Amino acid sequence: MSLPQPTLLYESHRAPNPRRVQIFLAEKAVEIPRQEVDIMAGHHFGADYRDRIGTHHVPALELEDGSVLTETVAICRYIEALSPEPNLMGRDAREAAEIEMWQRRVEFQLLMPIAFVARHGLPAMQVLEQTQVPEWADANRPRVLAGLAWLDKRLQTSPFVAGDRFTIADITAVVGIDFMRVIRTGIPDDAVSLDTWLEKVRGRPSMELKAA
Amino acid sequence: MSLPQPTLLYESHRAPNPRRVQIFLAEKAVEIPRQEVDIMAGHHFGADYRDRIGTHHVPALELEDGSVLTETVAICRYIEALSPEPNLMGRDAREAAEIEMWQRRVEFQLLMPIAFVARHGLPAMQVLEQTQVPEWADANRPRVLAGLAWLDKRLQTSPFVAGDRFTIADITAVVGIDFMRVIRTGIPDDAVSLDTWLEKVRGRPSMELKAA
Repeated sequence: MSLPQPTLLYESHRAPNPRRVQIFLAEKAVEIPRQEVDIMAGHHFGADYRDRIGTHHVPALELEDGSVLTETVAICRYIEALSPEPNLMGRDAREAAEIEMWQRRVEFQLLMPIAFVARHGLPAMQVLEQTQVPEWADANRPRVLAGLAWLDKRLQTSPFVAGDRFTIADITAVVGIDFMRVIRTGIPDDAVSLDTWLEKVRGRPSMELKAA
Repeated sequence: MSLPQPTLLYESHRAPNPRRVQIFLAEKAVEIPRQEVDIMAGHHFGADYRDRIGTHHVPALELEDGSVLTETVAICRYIEALSPEPNLMGRDAREAAEIEMWQRRVEFQLLMPIAFVARHGLPAMQVLEQTQVPEWADANRPRVLAGLAWLDKRLQTSPFVAGDRFTIADITAVVGIDFMRVIRTGIPDDAVSLDTWLEKVRGRPSMELKAA
């Protein structure tokens, strides 16, 4: 099976989804040339970017045959196939399904509520969300807290989000939680297991924020 | 690799996510005993269901070792490993990444806006969405139309959503579109390619709605 190699990663290194890919790559010690896209200046909506990528989505991964992959998890899945170790998405079908389950739970129950509060509640985010719905930001604030409580409960009985080892589900969770700084939300005092896990995963070298 | 076999699928056969699994199984001619969960009566929020599944999510797949998988795509990925043919999620890493990309685009750009209009805009859906945000339903109506136009454009140059053959991305798209009946939205007259594709995929035997 000959897979085309990645040639360029378009990212916006402080935004959550590009950061998920950045950490995923760092865990595997894979280096791909990177190009920063200034999404807060709306550059991803410009013709230059869209003509090249086919959509306004960031991150995007160009391959040596000229094709482009978008969607964070699709990009990660491709990198996992190119560089299987350390494994982050499952060594067999059972693990792959369980990791995907936890990954999606974190997306739906934590990352998305956080993103909704930010994109619909912060005036500076209007460049990303042309029709902001403040009521939707408000409705998601309690969901963020519920998501944190849910994750804390999970981590009371599991060392990592998807089980015994660090996986893509931990990456998604820590990126979401780190992004809570923009919505001025912290970890609740009673979320002790979440806090312990957070300290552990934040200490990994892959978590260091690096500009392109 | 010995994988535990599924023993019971919890579903709610008219709801979009359970229907995605139902079609996925039918495409592979896989039969799993099914149990209907009456989500419009809120039975998935009851202690019986939550104690068994660990969450309120439907669908859920019980395995012979007593463990449970939730999240539609995680369930499908596990079934794909147990019954690889016909392939619906990619024969190699390249295809798997591309199919996941299209699958997620359909989820974000079409299925979720449709679900948001339904869950936040229809009084009958309050059982599923305790804090309805009508402004969010309103904001998603134009996104549904934009999603349909986007998919029509894609299908002008591709016979199926993810490429040359029927995949899980088509399942997600057709299930979303069929669910538009509840929000009283139809295919725009000028979406000719979408309409042609829809007629083609709706004709597949797997699309027939079957109660448990």
